[in-house]
Amino acid sequence: MDEPRSAAEDAGNPEKAPRTERGRRTLRKLLDAAAIEFGERGFHDASISDITRRAGTALGSFYTYFDSKDAIFRALVADMSGRVRDHVAPAMEGAQGAIDAEGRALAAFLHFAREHQEIYRIIDEAEFVDPDSFRGHYATTAERIAARLAAGADADELRGGIGEVEAWAIMGMNVFLGLRYGVWDRREDIAGVAGRANALIADGIRKPRG
Amino acid sequence: MDEPRSAAEDAGNPEKAPRTERGRRTLRKLLDAAAIEFGERGFHDASISDITRRAGTALGSFYTYFDSKDAIFRALVADMSGRVRDHVAPAMEGAQGAIDAEGRALAAFLHFAREHQEIYRIIDEAEFVDPDSFRGHYATTAERIAARLAAGADADELRGGIGEVEAWAIMGMNVFLGLRYGVWDRREDIAGVAGRANALIADGIRKPRG
Repeated sequence: MDEPRSAAEDAGNPEKAPRTERGRRTLRKLLDAAAIEFGERGFHDASISDITRRAGTALGSFYTYFDSKDAIFRALVADMSGRVRDHVAPAMEGAQGAIDAEGRALAAFLHFAREHQEIYRIIDEAEFVDPDSFRGHYATTAERIAARLAAGADADELRGGIGEVEAWAIMGMNVFLGLRYGVWDRREDIAGVAGRANALIADGIRKPRG
Repeated sequence: MDEPRSAAEDAGNPEKAPRTERGRRTLRKLLDAAAIEFGERGFHDASISDITRRAGTALGSFYTYFDSKDAIFRALVADMSGRVRDHVAPAMEGAQGAIDAEGRALAAFLHFAREHQEIYRIIDEAEFVDPDSFRGHYATTAERIAARLAAGADADELRGGIGEVEAWAIMGMNVFLGLRYGVWDRREDIAGVAGRANALIADGIRKPRG
């Protein structure tokens, strides 16, 4: 009972949250199957019966945790959002300051995008299927970046006056680099891409004088 | 016959391109109606008859220029892409160098997004409805930014070694700032947002030393 709740459990109907380890495994299987189903076929063509077939669970298990296709999609967006966060966070441990942390976060995200190509299709389709989830994902991601920037300014590494605008700028940069170098073209060296983007946010593209 | 062809005309079936001024006006009306229809209802719920009704044209006029709902959607994405380009380009005239040009481009884009809220829904839905158009829009936009950065480096204003990665980073920044401050929240001062983003790409967020 004291274990941390997963993003999916947070997102789901609290009355339908699994109470046993077996229930959690079933929920995980359903979410993983939903990621493949929605990622490959899109929301409209995806079906609950195909999700349970992929998951190897009974149809009844689905309704133990979700009311509808909309409900599992919403839970999946929250789950994906949480998985990105949980994948990126450890990569920032041991970072040498705020700028290095952003570079590590981007590199970890690019690796995640390469391993989970379906994330773009799912999060991007949320703009149409579940706009609140879409907005929530980016709002919370930007808040996390803004908090890191504020800490970097407090530590005197970053200049003052930075906040929400810079956080949205960095997030947009990361999302598009993930699309370009994580999903569309997976050959480019991730460390090289992340390093160049990190140099951009650190010191800009203006040629230094003197 | 020597007038420049619009993006929509380029994107459409060349055999169906309008040959008269009257034809061009009809095509423009159809594209403007399609922007409202797809922007408000999304691709799947939009219908050809509602587009012609909004445009005030006969159904036959539609088929003079387009074979299908897919065809006008594809033409609309190319048209929107071209309209952004044509809106942003004059704003860069008279820029004081490459960095100022990027700042003007972003400010012009934020104004465009506020005036054409439907652009996000249409371009973003292209990821699902017409992936080639979606990819083409961003690939050509990134190429334009990369060309400007290369010119700035040639002029010794920008440092060397910048190119595609930086162009995609700047484009992603612009897209997300447009979503945040152009579409979701239209109260923020555009000059302020564009100025902060421009300072980020110019000199970064690291606190200057000495």
